[in-house]
Amino acid sequence: MADEDWQRRVRTVWWEIDAQGAAVCLVDQTLLPQQVSYLHLRHEHDVAEAITTLKVRGAPAIGVTAAFGIALGLYRFCNRHRQQEEQITSAKALAHVKEVGALLGSTRPTALNLFWAIARMIDCAEEVARMQATAEQMLQRLSQEAQAIADEDAEACWQMGQYGATLISDGDILLTHCNAGALATAGIGTALAPIYTAHKSGKHIHVYVDETRPVLQGARLTAWELQQEGVPLTLIADNMAGHFMRHGGIRAVFVGADRIAGNGDVANKIGTYSVAVLASVHQIPFYVVAPCATIDLTLASGEQIPIEKRPLDEVTTMRGIVIAPAGVRVANPAFDVTPHQYVTAIITERGIARPNYEETLRQHCRAKNPGKVDA
Amino acid sequence: MADEDWQRRVRTVWWEIDAQGAAVCLVDQTLLPQQVSYLHLRHEHDVAEAITTLKVRGAPAIGVTAAFGIALGLYRFCNRHRQQEEQITSAKALAHVKEVGALLGSTRPTALNLFWAIARMIDCAEEVARMQATAEQMLQRLSQEAQAIADEDAEACWQMGQYGATLISDGDILLTHCNAGALATAGIGTALAPIYTAHKSGKHIHVYVDETRPVLQGARLTAWELQQEGVPLTLIADNMAGHFMRHGGIRAVFVGADRIAGNGDVANKIGTYSVAVLASVHQIPFYVVAPCATIDLTLASGEQIPIEKRPLDEVTTMRGIVIAPAGVRVANPAFDVTPHQYVTAIITERGIARPNYEETLRQHCRAKNPGKVDA
Repeated sequence: MADEDWQRRVRTVWWEIDAQGAAVCLVDQTLLPQQVSYLHLRHEHDVAEAITTLKVRGAPAIGVTAAFGIALGLYRFCNRHRQQEEQITSAKALAHVKEVGALLGSTRPTALNLFWAIARMIDCAEEVARMQATAEQMLQRLSQEAQAIADEDAEACWQMGQYGATLISDGDILLTHCNAGALATAGIGTALAPIYTAHKSGKHIHVYVDETRPVLQGARLTAWELQQEGVPLTLIADNMAGHFMRHGGIRAVFVGADRIAGNGDVANKIGTYSVAVLASVHQIPFYVVAPCATIDLTLASGEQIPIEKRPLDEVTTMRGIVIAPAGVRVANPAFDVTPHQYVTAIITERGIARPNYEETLRQHCRAKNPGKVDA
Repeated sequence: MADEDWQRRVRTVWWEIDAQGAAVCLVDQTLLPQQVSYLHLRHEHDVAEAITTLKVRGAPAIGVTAAFGIALGLYRFCNRHRQQEEQITSAKALAHVKEVGALLGSTRPTALNLFWAIARMIDCAEEVARMQATAEQMLQRLSQEAQAIADEDAEACWQMGQYGATLISDGDILLTHCNAGALATAGIGTALAPIYTAHKSGKHIHVYVDETRPVLQGARLTAWELQQEGVPLTLIADNMAGHFMRHGGIRAVFVGADRIAGNGDVANKIGTYSVAVLASVHQIPFYVVAPCATIDLTLASGEQIPIEKRPLDEVTTMRGIVIAPAGVRVANPAFDVTPHQYVTAIITERGIARPNYEETLRQHCRAKNPGKVDA
């Protein structure tokens, strides 16, 4: 199971019912690492805003957040009608769940986990509605389902850690881009899970961390996470990766993913493609670590993955400080696509998938339980 | 000659004598683009500090600045002795010139132009000393020599612009890294000279500008320069270069250099190597533009070029704002080395050098006048 030590230090996302009612709770990642500040969100609009503004980010984490957000939406809906002493049919509750799902699904386009979690919650609501249960029963079922999504994510992280750690040897120097750690999931992370697992098992490793402009998830989040866990690291600017691949003895690259097409093409944080090309030229294995919920078998190739364009002031300012001339034209794609040719292996909770990904990813997605495939 | 329009808008470095005496004058590049503020430095220690702290940067510009700095040192020396009504021998003046040269040479280790300019000034002082001239005569000669270095740099920039522009076609999309523009020279730049020349001749070009972490010379200086000159540009984070090489139709990369070894290996701003590798994989020509004063024929390969390590807070802070966890380990090499295999051509004031660089760079360096070789 997920590392309990880690979970005590920082909690990415959870569901809570206190005196004021239900809340989706998050650490505000925009304030890290200077401030560890938890948000208690009590309205689905606030959950949507938290996803859009990157208060919570990371494909698995936004999936879990959206699942809890749907439960929160239904909670508020039931509460409102209870106060008005109205009866609500499960059909009406289902319609509301779909509305909340649409709201949360409109926040960010690239990470599949978001749509996967929303679809799973709606499926669950539809199942309850078909049974003619009450809205309250639907709420109970949906809050359980959201918690199951969170728990399964934590379990998947742990499994990815187990599989991925077999690719890491004592003494290895690794490189990671962006944050695919505990803060990106409900567990110990995707790309960082093998790193944590290897470290805990006593392997001596050192991790180069790309700062990951423009939002600095590497500098702010990954460096902080690794530091907390005592994993030795060196923070570098993104443009230093090639230099340290040539001179720094880097033995493998581990990154997460926001969506993986059926052929193994990987959409991940902007800059991942450059890292993959550089790794290939330096004959360094390039590993992608992501749960099956990130794999989109409906897309034949990565060219079909929608790429989010983020606000331009992410590039022209840094924490409010202007760093570029006024009026300059800027590009800010949040993700890029790494063609499968550059991907040495994809580690999921079901094992280590290697090319031909058309086959192996299907095997991973078909398996019902974690830890059942080693394609 | 150098573009007069541009020179009116911003002056990188010049020598001035006003009511308070002699001054090395600079635009403070650490304040750009928000503030255009000129410094009048009246002590050689201030000149050294300005180079160390990047108030002036860019290999040719720091060479010119050091030349003026030596003239300033001798000016102060002569002045002091004149006030004390002491006679000074040219031998004593020469010793002082060498001291000032050592001070200025200790500021930054990588750019050859710095050492080249200092050596040229000392050679000149030695020549005057051999003629048994007065210290005042030496001062006159050294201030002329420093001005000649500045004027020749401006002329070299113009020539590099002429040669380099032949490599740019109407409609081309280009990419540049760091700032190798007017602000890096006493003229219209090195890597940006062909771009300005092509633009002025009516070619429609568009330039992707890497922001160039950690010091953001791309975002702060290159984007601003191009904007001032009306050259269309798109500012991107460094890690987007690969993505836009794959999807943005980039047709050529132009960068400057801080030192070029005899075999054509190029030391330039950190990140240049990654850009060169990415360009190679995408079959995009990678051009280095630098005057012969940047070519170090004493070094057989780039591995021998000393690489400056800059203060770590350049990476962990941005304009005073902390962007990484406290106590994190950081690497901050200011330059990297691009092996000559990745360099399509090197454009100097003497023409376009292509491999085998062992031969062609020697031809360029041997030629006495600009515009005489087309190797």
